[in-house]
Amino acid sequence: LSAKIISKLESMNGVNGPQNGQPHLDHADGQYFLTEAYKVILEEVLCKGTDVKEKVCDWHDPEELSALLDLELREGGESHHQLLQRVRDVAKYSVKTNHPRFFNQLFAGVDYHSLAGRFLTEALNTSQYTYEVAPVFVLMENVMLTKLRSMVGWPQGDGIFCPGGSVSNMYAMNVARYRAYPQVKVQGLWAVPRLAAFTSQESHYSLCKAASFLGIGLDNVFMVKVNERGCMIPEDLDEKIELARSQGAVPFLVSATSGTTIQGAFDPLDRIADICDKNKLWMHVDAAWGGSVLFSKKHKHLMKGIERADSLAWNPHKMLLAGLQCCVFLLKDNTDLLKQCHCANATYLFQQDKFYDMRMDTGDKSVQCGRKVDCLKLWLMWKAVGTEGLAERVDKVFKLARYLVREMSKREGFQLVNEPQFVNVCFWYIPPSLRGKEGNNDYQEKLSKVAPVIKERMMRKGSMMVGYQPLREKVNFFRMVIISPHISQEDMDFFLDEIERLGKDLYNAL
Amino acid sequence: LSAKIISKLESMNGVNGPQNGQPHLDHADGQYFLTEAYKVILEEVLCKGTDVKEKVCDWHDPEELSALLDLELREGGESHHQLLQRVRDVAKYSVKTNHPRFFNQLFAGVDYHSLAGRFLTEALNTSQYTYEVAPVFVLMENVMLTKLRSMVGWPQGDGIFCPGGSVSNMYAMNVARYRAYPQVKVQGLWAVPRLAAFTSQESHYSLCKAASFLGIGLDNVFMVKVNERGCMIPEDLDEKIELARSQGAVPFLVSATSGTTIQGAFDPLDRIADICDKNKLWMHVDAAWGGSVLFSKKHKHLMKGIERADSLAWNPHKMLLAGLQCCVFLLKDNTDLLKQCHCANATYLFQQDKFYDMRMDTGDKSVQCGRKVDCLKLWLMWKAVGTEGLAERVDKVFKLARYLVREMSKREGFQLVNEPQFVNVCFWYIPPSLRGKEGNNDYQEKLSKVAPVIKERMMRKGSMMVGYQPLREKVNFFRMVIISPHISQEDMDFFLDEIERLGKDLYNAL
Repeated sequence: LSAKIISKLESMNGVNGPQNGQPHLDHADGQYFLTEAYKVILEEVLCKGTDVKEKVCDWHDPEELSALLDLELREGGESHHQLLQRVRDVAKYSVKTNHPRFFNQLFAGVDYHSLAGRFLTEALNTSQYTYEVAPVFVLMENVMLTKLRSMVGWPQGDGIFCPGGSVSNMYAMNVARYRAYPQVKVQGLWAVPRLAAFTSQESHYSLCKAASFLGIGLDNVFMVKVNERGCMIPEDLDEKIELARSQGAVPFLVSATSGTTIQGAFDPLDRIADICDKNKLWMHVDAAWGGSVLFSKKHKHLMKGIERADSLAWNPHKMLLAGLQCCVFLLKDNTDLLKQCHCANATYLFQQDKFYDMRMDTGDKSVQCGRKVDCLKLWLMWKAVGTEGLAERVDKVFKLARYLVREMSKREGFQLVNEPQFVNVCFWYIPPSLRGKEGNNDYQEKLSKVAPVIKERMMRKGSMMVGYQPLREKVNFFRMVIISPHISQEDMDFFLDEIERLGKDLYNAL
Repeated sequence: LSAKIISKLESMNGVNGPQNGQPHLDHADGQYFLTEAYKVILEEVLCKGTDVKEKVCDWHDPEELSALLDLELREGGESHHQLLQRVRDVAKYSVKTNHPRFFNQLFAGVDYHSLAGRFLTEALNTSQYTYEVAPVFVLMENVMLTKLRSMVGWPQGDGIFCPGGSVSNMYAMNVARYRAYPQVKVQGLWAVPRLAAFTSQESHYSLCKAASFLGIGLDNVFMVKVNERGCMIPEDLDEKIELARSQGAVPFLVSATSGTTIQGAFDPLDRIADICDKNKLWMHVDAAWGGSVLFSKKHKHLMKGIERADSLAWNPHKMLLAGLQCCVFLLKDNTDLLKQCHCANATYLFQQDKFYDMRMDTGDKSVQCGRKVDCLKLWLMWKAVGTEGLAERVDKVFKLARYLVREMSKREGFQLVNEPQFVNVCFWYIPPSLRGKEGNNDYQEKLSKVAPVIKERMMRKGSMMVGYQPLREKVNFFRMVIISPHISQEDMDFFLDEIERLGKDLYNAL
């Protein structure tokens, strides 16, 4: 640290606010606060927040939490001391997603190199849209996209980082539509026939949201049947395409899934590609969750055929721990379709008389204007552990998921929904009182209430977090997901023990 | 800091990689790296990066910069020492948007409380979609939206933080469309008549991007004429509405602008509201840039009539220095239109049998699934300086802009495009060789080349950054914007001196 800052840090006692009469505008005062806040973050979020002996959450109902936090914004400012306490409180009452017992979402755990990249990104505070204001990040995004495309099997192509996989899926839908009917951009959907998109019943809901948002409408998304494990049935895709045509709609897009949200199912990409080829449809793959299997020599067969797709959504913030948000949309196209589809040629940003090659500017590929820098965190993490290190992490969580399944099979009361393809382990916990009662009329209804009760109990206790949901005719079951390379077999054993501890007195107690 | 971390930090020498054989998975190793990276960020980005004696950018052409950075991703990982050098290099070659001579975009400067909030947000790594995983942030977002709405003059209403003002504008368009024709969500645009939206010629290009993306088409955005200062002409809005109707289109949305991107113009909201009332149109206001004038008693008259709008886009990451990205979309509606328009009712996230009030969950208001936490940085900054402190900052930059205009008028060669309404100061610099030559045939052509040359020179020198652009019939002019409360009259004087230094030998040298 510079002598200036060190002396400033030493001269301040930390309980008073800024001393110079210009509230909160002195850089040294600000840097002193930031450093104190950094220490709180390190202590509360990264040390305690990852400590298995601490709670994963400190649950309070909304009214109670509101009262604890004093969120109100007022005319006057607060002291350094009060503000640091606020940093502590926000940390205290937030869910510890870096905790080894957090299994609730498709993200979990912390990578410190990524986190360093995220702090650096925040401090540099720039936008990804032009080379002029983001020279390092424009080059870095290109390298990253090229590398990820090479893993897909595309020597050429295009891509962009998006604010979420849902947005990537929207991009796919819009680019596919533009390729089929470029006039939509200028004339709108009234100038073209009714369009039809296809995705599986177990695909992510963002495909439906995309169809609504893009003016295509939910009715024009045909939901293709899945098999028992949740994989799209190609024969039904064929039928749904015929059905759409029989209704006068024009098929334009199939969105397959690699790693469905609930069951972690992988659609059969080769067979879907055959159908897309035959029907000349854009083949998109929503691999937001499953894409990271491409790192694993052992498991990448799950995405066999991916190189035949036209586009792909992949979120390194999920299994790779790159941190929210880090989402790429990749295309095989190398005719500048993305830019043609989205460009607006704003003269104030993308001047044609710039002194550097303005093809470096990315703004016209995006539907956003300002766009966060999401590549640095992934890049720094990758530099730290290498492709090998990321592959090891993917293999490790697969192994842990297999371990969990084996351990479950040794215990009474754990019933798999399906043998997992991926690291989603979906299961019912059957409390002793319900075992052997499958024939009873009220069995399903009673079973449906088990997971919500166990969930409430674990939240109020703060011991762990895992999600549950129903799925079509299946009543509520747990979806356990294994993501963080920091977790161990002991955490898996704890998980099973804790489910038993929290649920063994059910159904009597309901 | 905990004794554990302190002892770890002390025991490591900082030049070797992790010691424990499990590469990059030990928390203490990771925290040690993060702390070292934090020091580099403090030193390079926040101390040197804000030092007026340092360069605002260290310009290199793309090929050269690529060679300097070694961006390639490889099989193996790198050492702690190498990785820290990478952090230093990324900082070194990035543009210093916190620097007092950065005037290039509609964001600039640093607020350290906001930055502390951003670091905390990154470390906590959660998603804004449910109360379950973001209890503090769901409550905080609500408080923040309520407070911002109260400044607009809406005692009730709704809202959401979006990844960029462009997305907020898309939300406005989609919600307006849904109110007019709710069947679009399910049946698509084929089920409704051709729609027409209206915005000014100088509005942000995101309105056009939104129309393309949402399937409405560029042709159905009617560009309303502006007066000399860049403000929408209400009479022309009336005419354009008639024109659309005469073409068989159904008007549904007017998007006015408070603070246009180039000239900083404010559309006359009251008169536009009259027209919207009369025609029963959704009135949206894109105040992404100008919205922060609502903090200023002295300047909020620029948005007189805003309470009559139906929705508003406002980016506190611009004038308020909240950090990229911090963008709100606010609505007056209190009938849950936003949720009805965007909901998908995904059972795996938004279970109906949760043990808390699931109306707290925000996911169904968004077209995203995962959504970054963007409220904490604004909240912590607001707690630090209070509403008064933010108001002072807004007033301060207005004053500086007025100062700049006065100083320009005292110098030869600076010609305003218009008297500024806001903190955008648009001007031509006329080099001595072109003064008095306005009558020459090649004057405009020569003038158009002045700004690009001065821009290239300042970038290669690294002395400052400011943008330029043409605007319809007007050739390239500079757009100076004053945002950061850290800048001073001396910085304004430097700006004018530097333009003269860089441009005085033109046009001879071209």
